[in-house]
Amino acid sequence: MIPVKGYAAQTPTSDLASWDFQRREVGPHDVQFDILFCGVCHSDLHQIKNEWFEGIFPMVPGHEIVGKVMKVGDHVKKFKVGDLAGTGCLVDSCRTCENCKNDLEQYCLKGNSQTYNGLEQDKKTPTYGGYSRTIVVHEDFVLHISEKLNLAAVAPLLCAGITTYSPLRHWKVGKGHKLAVLGLGGLGHMGVKFGVAFGAEVTVLSTSPSKEKDAKKLGAHHFVVTSDPAQVKAAMGTFDYILDTVSAEHDFNMYLSLLRTNGVHICVGVPSKPAEIAAFSLLGGRKSVAGSGIGGLAETQEMLDFCAEHNIVSDIELIDIKDITASYARMVKGDVRYRFVIDIATLH
Amino acid sequence: MIPVKGYAAQTPTSDLASWDFQRREVGPHDVQFDILFCGVCHSDLHQIKNEWFEGIFPMVPGHEIVGKVMKVGDHVKKFKVGDLAGTGCLVDSCRTCENCKNDLEQYCLKGNSQTYNGLEQDKKTPTYGGYSRTIVVHEDFVLHISEKLNLAAVAPLLCAGITTYSPLRHWKVGKGHKLAVLGLGGLGHMGVKFGVAFGAEVTVLSTSPSKEKDAKKLGAHHFVVTSDPAQVKAAMGTFDYILDTVSAEHDFNMYLSLLRTNGVHICVGVPSKPAEIAAFSLLGGRKSVAGSGIGGLAETQEMLDFCAEHNIVSDIELIDIKDITASYARMVKGDVRYRFVIDIATLH
Repeated sequence: MIPVKGYAAQTPTSDLASWDFQRREVGPHDVQFDILFCGVCHSDLHQIKNEWFEGIFPMVPGHEIVGKVMKVGDHVKKFKVGDLAGTGCLVDSCRTCENCKNDLEQYCLKGNSQTYNGLEQDKKTPTYGGYSRTIVVHEDFVLHISEKLNLAAVAPLLCAGITTYSPLRHWKVGKGHKLAVLGLGGLGHMGVKFGVAFGAEVTVLSTSPSKEKDAKKLGAHHFVVTSDPAQVKAAMGTFDYILDTVSAEHDFNMYLSLLRTNGVHICVGVPSKPAEIAAFSLLGGRKSVAGSGIGGLAETQEMLDFCAEHNIVSDIELIDIKDITASYARMVKGDVRYRFVIDIATLH
Repeated sequence: MIPVKGYAAQTPTSDLASWDFQRREVGPHDVQFDILFCGVCHSDLHQIKNEWFEGIFPMVPGHEIVGKVMKVGDHVKKFKVGDLAGTGCLVDSCRTCENCKNDLEQYCLKGNSQTYNGLEQDKKTPTYGGYSRTIVVHEDFVLHISEKLNLAAVAPLLCAGITTYSPLRHWKVGKGHKLAVLGLGGLGHMGVKFGVAFGAEVTVLSTSPSKEKDAKKLGAHHFVVTSDPAQVKAAMGTFDYILDTVSAEHDFNMYLSLLRTNGVHICVGVPSKPAEIAAFSLLGGRKSVAGSGIGGLAETQEMLDFCAEHNIVSDIELIDIKDITASYARMVKGDVRYRFVIDIATLH
């Protein structure tokens, strides 16, 4: 076994703190890479606090992981020592179900292995995430990272990036479409960048007028303050798609009224309470509320390659891991432009 | 003006009773047809009881209307005296908005004119429905009815028929798809007939085991009793589409679990309380909840022609209009196979 230094929550009520644990030896198809940066996702906090479901403790969060390959197994073909590498929300899946065969490992029908707070495919061994110095992952679940981009700013692409890229691609959002991005946080700011890159006319919907300048800087064409009834009224029936990145409670019926006929409200955030949706909000214009979760491995690589080609990364604030609890508090308040990334060199 | 005998609710708390009112004279583009049969839709009851919104009283319900043309305006080209004719939920629309131009008058952006409990395009004159002896409608909102079919059983096609036909066509449900029809009432039984006619493998979902025989008689291939956990478990992740015709409260998250990846739950019923939908029910398989309302005029004619070609009508119970209140009570209990139709000859 490989001894690893990490940061873990020992229980749902304890703060993250240093924890020594072990990872498996590098198997024939495994890649071991030393973690250089790990993004901080809102779901890290949801999970260490058991806000979604009963977690597996101790829990080492982190699924926006980039680093440098240190060792590869005898049969590994896709990576060599010294390559940049990344891992997102998944470290394995059944590989045999219909969805896995169709590059939709995120929807593995037998249950995939989440990067942390999950179990390996033996359904026994817990997984530990990227708030740690090194990780061992089957090569099929390791992504290639371009040398061209700022590596720390690439980390959030592994979750915030693919979570917004995948639905925009699935629903073929692009030229001729009006896309609204709801919420301007870690996911939302990537939704704006991808929407603009795909040729859509992008509007940011936000309760905070103060975010308009930032939204425009990110490339958004328009900004609607959703707490202003006049602005909401003017936007009614105008959007083809809403990309909803908000994980706080919000009024779906109001947002559905902003969609055009046949419009789709795509949820990628996970509010802890169910959405309340009136039948007439959907029937009055053949509208849909859809959900989309991260992306498959092939699509994640496609997204990373697209980002390298178009020079797209996240806007980040690099932090020392000892500041993680304070950073969570700022994240909850929306006080981050737009993603915290841990400099893993600060983890001793 | 043309004097007309009808049945109306004078207030939201009064039962339907005989009422004499007037319709406009036949204009140059109008068709007047004497009503022979009018279907009884659950929405008739919702509306006379103000369960959806504040109605316009006196209210003459009925939007599943068939009869025989008695008079046509000078410029009418599509109909002549003696033709069979029908009118569904709409008697007019703005005709100029993007949706009207795209044969989606049901989603008219300026507000269409509902056949009853609505206003003409002058936004002043109330509309009165098919629980009456004769009706005057602009020819563009009158449908041709085949002589080949049982006319009384055609009436429900004008609402129950198009409401189920339209979404199945829009989502291209057919060969190779597993379609679940939720609820086996006026809409549901038409959903089964169309699903089967389009080549889908059709399952009826119902809380009543007693409906299995009927479901199979209508052509359904399978039947799942949703109050039986074992049957529900076996059906999980199996349907491409659910056509949800239920207007009572129900557990959307349970039904969403029955959908395959990319599955769509299509609502055509209108529960009075909002649906509660957990984010994970949608995200875990890129699922959607969509709504669809009736259909446009061109599609309604297409549906009627399809029915004539494939010998499809509703299963009905013909009633005397004096039994309407008792029939509503039976409808609320689901005690009708599957649509009441009023024999307008009983309205004196």
